[in-house]
Amino acid sequence: MNRLLKTHIPLCGFMELAIKSLESHSIIATAPIQPNRNMHGTGFAGAQYSLAVATGWALVQNRLDVAGMEGQLVVREATIHYKYPVTSDITLKAEFEVEMNDSELRSKMAEEGRINFPLTIAIYSEDKRCAYLNADYVVLGRA
Amino acid sequence: MNRLLKTHIPLCGFMELAIKSLESHSIIATAPIQPNRNMHGTGFAGAQYSLAVATGWALVQNRLDVAGMEGQLVVREATIHYKYPVTSDITLKAEFEVEMNDSELRSKMAEEGRINFPLTIAIYSEDKRCAYLNADYVVLGRA
Repeated sequence: MNRLLKTHIPLCGFMELAIKSLESHSIIATAPIQPNRNMHGTGFAGAQYSLAVATGWALVQNRLDVAGMEGQLVVREATIHYKYPVTSDITLKAEFEVEMNDSELRSKMAEEGRINFPLTIAIYSEDKRCAYLNADYVVLGRA
Repeated sequence: MNRLLKTHIPLCGFMELAIKSLESHSIIATAPIQPNRNMHGTGFAGAQYSLAVATGWALVQNRLDVAGMEGQLVVREATIHYKYPVTSDITLKAEFEVEMNDSELRSKMAEEGRINFPLTIAIYSEDKRCAYLNADYVVLGRA
């Protein structure tokens, strides 16, 4: 998944996004501050968003892979809240609030042709929750 | 402003964000699809957001510069809506919905210690409005 992100999304390579832990229900990723800074030396708002949206994407894509499912994964909309400046290296964390097992996922896709994955991705720096992203991922079934 | 963005925000340099037109009330910027693509060859959700938030930032920062004002410009929260895939090079457009003249800006800062700049930044590709970002910029006065 790390290689997928970095090879196929140039921005993820540049931002040095690295997945540290990826389970079927949760993910932890990191990135250094250096490529992701703004003119104040703190985390650029856009970099924080990009790291978070890619981390959430990886969690949902991995969940589909685990379930042996295919589908087109997109983000419909997302809201980011910035609470404190990101002053050092960045850690991203996300987990599913509602867990569906593989057969639930497959029957939902068969019945509705899509699955919504609302997700909150938290952005930490120096153990402080500096920002969080609420993103609405949607998996569309292959027609 | 172009140099400021590219020199001091590494991500803006990588994304090749280029300001094409910057007036006190409006901005137009562009970026090529290549560094901003995802694994499908369309615009990466994070890149679209980053280009848009930096474009809005440049418009507000320039407005402060024009008014001869100083202050700390931050984004509090922002929501992006993705409507269509970005299939080619990207154009960003934003303008202020409410225009305040310099003296209005200065008296607002003097009275309230902050100025809110809610802004919508539209993301176009091949003349189609593919996405838009609603971002709440805030300028905080120097204490």
